[in-house]
Amino acid sequence: MRAEIIAVGSELLTPSRVDTNSLYVTQQLNSIGVEVFRKYVVGDRLEEICSSLELALQASDIVILMGGLGPTRDDLTRDAVAASLRLELRLDPVLLQSLESRFARAGLRMAENNRLQAMVPEGAATLENPFGTAPGIFLQPSGKLLFLLPGPPSELRPMIMHHVLPAICRLKTPRPRFTRLLKIGSEFESRVDEKISPIYAEYPEIEVTILASAGIIELFFLWKGEPEAGQAVSQLEELTRRIRGQLGHSVFTDQDESLEMVLGEMLRGRRQTVATAESCTGGLIGKMLTEVPGSSDYYLGGVVSYSNDLKLSFLSVDPDALRQYGAVSEPVARQMAEGIRERTRADFGISLTGIAGPGGATTDKPVGLVFMAISSKSGTACRRVQLRGDRETIRIRAARLLIDWLRRVLLEEGS
Amino acid sequence: MRAEIIAVGSELLTPSRVDTNSLYVTQQLNSIGVEVFRKYVVGDRLEEICSSLELALQASDIVILMGGLGPTRDDLTRDAVAASLRLELRLDPVLLQSLESRFARAGLRMAENNRLQAMVPEGAATLENPFGTAPGIFLQPSGKLLFLLPGPPSELRPMIMHHVLPAICRLKTPRPRFTRLLKIGSEFESRVDEKISPIYAEYPEIEVTILASAGIIELFFLWKGEPEAGQAVSQLEELTRRIRGQLGHSVFTDQDESLEMVLGEMLRGRRQTVATAESCTGGLIGKMLTEVPGSSDYYLGGVVSYSNDLKLSFLSVDPDALRQYGAVSEPVARQMAEGIRERTRADFGISLTGIAGPGGATTDKPVGLVFMAISSKSGTACRRVQLRGDRETIRIRAARLLIDWLRRVLLEEGS
Repeated sequence: MRAEIIAVGSELLTPSRVDTNSLYVTQQLNSIGVEVFRKYVVGDRLEEICSSLELALQASDIVILMGGLGPTRDDLTRDAVAASLRLELRLDPVLLQSLESRFARAGLRMAENNRLQAMVPEGAATLENPFGTAPGIFLQPSGKLLFLLPGPPSELRPMIMHHVLPAICRLKTPRPRFTRLLKIGSEFESRVDEKISPIYAEYPEIEVTILASAGIIELFFLWKGEPEAGQAVSQLEELTRRIRGQLGHSVFTDQDESLEMVLGEMLRGRRQTVATAESCTGGLIGKMLTEVPGSSDYYLGGVVSYSNDLKLSFLSVDPDALRQYGAVSEPVARQMAEGIRERTRADFGISLTGIAGPGGATTDKPVGLVFMAISSKSGTACRRVQLRGDRETIRIRAARLLIDWLRRVLLEEGS
Repeated sequence: MRAEIIAVGSELLTPSRVDTNSLYVTQQLNSIGVEVFRKYVVGDRLEEICSSLELALQASDIVILMGGLGPTRDDLTRDAVAASLRLELRLDPVLLQSLESRFARAGLRMAENNRLQAMVPEGAATLENPFGTAPGIFLQPSGKLLFLLPGPPSELRPMIMHHVLPAICRLKTPRPRFTRLLKIGSEFESRVDEKISPIYAEYPEIEVTILASAGIIELFFLWKGEPEAGQAVSQLEELTRRIRGQLGHSVFTDQDESLEMVLGEMLRGRRQTVATAESCTGGLIGKMLTEVPGSSDYYLGGVVSYSNDLKLSFLSVDPDALRQYGAVSEPVARQMAEGIRERTRADFGISLTGIAGPGGATTDKPVGLVFMAISSKSGTACRRVQLRGDRETIRIRAARLLIDWLRRVLLEEGS
C-alpha cells in the first residue's frame, strides 16, 4: 500500500521552513503498514496543487493533502481538489452551523471569511476537527483514498489518529508490518553502529535504520522477509535482545516514548523527586521534564540562575567560588546542584552551567564547554563535557546528557 | 523564473528525516531572483524519480535533482534521467581517469562500483565535485536547465555556488525579486486577514501570504508585477505601511527576527531587566528568552515553581492565597510576578500559571486556562486567557502571549 503526502503553503517554500508534518504522518502510516512513496511541498497556487495531486492519485492508493484549508483567499486546497476531480464546491449548511456555534461558544463573531471553510466538494465526507475551524475532507476518487487535512500540527495530528488511520484500516487491508525500535541516550552514532553492525549483519532479512538527532539515537528494525508472523517476530526479538545486550544501559526504551517519559516513570515508581538549577540552558531542562503530562508527581521545579546574582541568592553558591573559578566550573556546578536540592528538599538536585555560544568563550573555556552535576543523599557527582554545534544544538545535547545521566544513576541505584 | 527541487533517497521518506538541502538551495536560488515553485522527496526508485522529473521539467525552467549519484545499486538518478529524456548513458573516459587518480592520491584502490559514477547521459556536461567522488551533471533538455547534484551538503553546497548559480546567470536573465515581511504577535489569523484584506486587495500585483504558527503570524509580500524596481519598492512600501497602520502595535518586526530578539533589543536599549516565574510552562519562557545570544544582558533568570512549595519558598506567595484561590488563579499569578521581581530586583517580573492539560482540569478551571502577570515599578497587571490545543500548543502559545505582552508594555511606556 502506497501513500503520497502533499504539503501546501508558500511559506514551506521559503529558505527557513521545512515541512515537519509529513514526518508524523509517515510514522502513523508506517505503523499500519502503509509506506510513503513520495512527498511534495507546493505553494498556495492552484496549478502546482492540481498537478501534484493528479500525479499522486495516478501513482498511489492513498493521498494526503495538508494545509490550505484556512479561511483566507490564499487557501486553495478545496478549489484545487474540486478542479482536479471536476467536482463542484457546495456550502455545507450543517458545517456552517457548527462553525457559527463554535465561534458563538467562544464569545466571538464569525468572520465572513470563515464561511469558505464550510465549502465542500460534492460527494465528499467531512472530518470533524475539534481543535480548529477547518474541517477535514475525505473523498474516494476511482477507489483511491484522498484526505484533505488542516496544516497546524495540533489539528492535524488528532485527525490522523481519529479519522485517517481508521478509514484506511476499514477500506484497505494493510500488509502486516513487523518492526522493533530501540532508543539510546548519550552515545555517538558511529560508535553505536560500530558496536552493533557485526550483529545485525547476521540478519539479512531485517533492515536496520540508525537515526541520530540531538543526543538521542534511534534504531529501527523492519522485517523485510516473507510476511510470516512467527519467523518475523522471533528474528526481531533475537536481534534486538542481542543488541540490547551489547549496548547495555545506553538503551533507554524499546517503546515509542521519550527519554523524559522514561526518567519520569522511574522517579514516580521510586517516589523520588528532582529539582533543576540551570544556567546556560535557561529553563530548557525544566521545559523538557514538564513536556510529560503528570510530571508534577516528581518534578518540583527549579531555578534558572542565568545571572550570577541568582546563583548566590537562590542557590547559595559561594561568592568566592564564583570569583575564583567562574560561573562555568566544576565547583559552581556542584554547588548549584547541592543548593537546589537543599532549598527544595528534592531527592535529586541536578545542575548545568556552560558556554552555549556563540559569544562568551575564553581561552581556557571554549564554546560548548559544559559542567553538569547531580546531588543526592549519596553525595554530589560532576561531569565536564565538551560539545559541538550551534547554540541550539549545544543546549539540547547538554540537557539530554544530564537527563540521561540521571536515568543511569537511578538504574545503578536500583540494581 | 521558476525552479523545482527533487531530493532523492529512501532515508528521506522515514519518519525522522527531513530534506534540509533544499533550504540552502532555495536561499541561493532566491538570491539571484529564482523562485522555487515545488519540492519533491522521492525514494531510491526509478518510477518516482522519473515521474517527478517529468512533471518538474514540464512546469518549470530549472530543475535540481539532489542525491542518488553514489556508486551503489540503489543510486538511480543517472538512470532515471537517461530514461526520462531517452538518452543513453555512456562511460566518460576523462571522468573515469579523474576518479581513478583521486583514489590513487588517497592511497586507495577504486572499487569496481565507482565506475558507475563515470557514466554520463549523452550530451551532458559534468560538473567538478572537489569534495567527493560523485561529479555533478548538467543538461539542457528543450531549453530547460537540469542539474544533477550529490546529496551530502558538504559536496552539494560548493557545487551550487560554483556551478549552478553561474550557469543560471549565464543562460537566463534572472528577474529581480522584491519582497517584504511583517511579523505579528497575539492575534488570530482570521482576524488579521479580515482587517487587512480590504487593503491588500487594492494591490493586485503583490502576492500576500499569511502564515500562523503557535501565536505568531507572518505576512509575506511578494511583488508579482513588472520587474521595475521603482514601482515594486514604492508599492511594497505603501502596502506594508498601510498594513502596519491598521495593525498598530501588533506588528513586532519587519525583519527576519524572532519576537524574543525584538523584546531583547528593547530591554537592552532601555537598560532594563526581566525575571521569570513559571509554573505550567516549566521553564519554556526562560528557554525562549535565552535562545537569543547575549540575553544575559537583560534576562536575570527565574524560578520554575512547578510545585506549590516552590511558589511559597522562592516567590513568597501567600499560602492563604494558594489555599483559597488555587495555584491557577489571578492572586497567585500576581504574587508570583511580584515575588520574582522583588527577589531578583529585576525591572520586570513576569509570571505564568495555568492548566496545560491533558489532566488537571476542574469544573471551573478547564484545560487551557492561563493567568499571566507583569509586575514593574508602575504596579502589577494580570490577564486571564483561555487557550486551545494540546499540551505543547497551549504552553507555547501562553509563553508567546506573555512575551508579546511585555513587548507591548515596553512600547506603551516608551511612547
